[in-house]
Amino acid sequence: MKVYSFRPVAPEDQALICRHRVEMFRASGRDEAVLAEMDGPFGEWLRPRLASGAYFGWLGLAADDEVVAGIGMMVIDWPPHPSHPTQSARGYILNVFVEPDHRGRGLASALMDLAMEEARRRGLDHMILHATRMGRPLYETLGWSQTSEMGLSLREGGLMTKLR
Amino acid sequence: MKVYSFRPVAPEDQALICRHRVEMFRASGRDEAVLAEMDGPFGEWLRPRLASGAYFGWLGLAADDEVVAGIGMMVIDWPPHPSHPTQSARGYILNVFVEPDHRGRGLASALMDLAMEEARRRGLDHMILHATRMGRPLYETLGWSQTSEMGLSLREGGLMTKLR
Repeated sequence: MKVYSFRPVAPEDQALICRHRVEMFRASGRDEAVLAEMDGPFGEWLRPRLASGAYFGWLGLAADDEVVAGIGMMVIDWPPHPSHPTQSARGYILNVFVEPDHRGRGLASALMDLAMEEARRRGLDHMILHATRMGRPLYETLGWSQTSEMGLSLREGGLMTKLR
Repeated sequence: MKVYSFRPVAPEDQALICRHRVEMFRASGRDEAVLAEMDGPFGEWLRPRLASGAYFGWLGLAADDEVVAGIGMMVIDWPPHPSHPTQSARGYILNVFVEPDHRGRGLASALMDLAMEEARRRGLDHMILHATRMGRPLYETLGWSQTSEMGLSLREGGLMTKLR
């Protein structure tokens, strides 16, 4: 049985986080062409936020110190809402990824624990995330539930295409 | 049959927009105590954004020029995503409200048309909203679909309470 350790993400993890995001969406069946399109702009978006700490998170390391899992987090501006009536922010969890060989060993759950601990430390009243099919059962176990969010794509020349 | 007209929101509509937000959540069955708690902070959040144009939207007016409906919109920062791979933003629609006496006459649909026209004008690839039970059927008709968003409340001393 492997023993895992954890550390916070740092600016040097830029390329790794980009890879985790692509792998996460790939595992959920997203189109390769769109992932290739996203990769560069996501990296540009990430760099200053990783440097400033606006994007933070943790990595899971195997016994040989290889990074095998990761989670990202942000505190995003949001209008005060019945779920956080006196706060104009909510926590957002993203880029949850575990390498296939290391799945089913509690890594995602341990990373979620680190994120929730930080959410409590920051006094956040409300958290959101977008679940992949793979992630949903874990989040449900941890007490998360479906919201009423709906989406609409305006890509492809204004044609209304279904979100997935 | 009433004839409606429309105009953009202005800073002078501050109190009206606050009322629409409370009435919208009230109609969806939210707790009165939490709505009272939210009202002040939402107003404080709204004022500078309404002044700067970060929050914008439209109002529906009855024949006598009384405001009887409203919709709000923002362009929110978001990491590039398969639904908007080259954009680090998505459009957000909020505070959709129609006075009870004026429902079922196409006002919400007309306000959504104005918002979508603006979304296209700004070149946004992707839009989101959170639907009330009352609003959902309209949004589905307009091509919107459920996302995978999940939420978790950390209010009430860290007790995990269900989002609704």
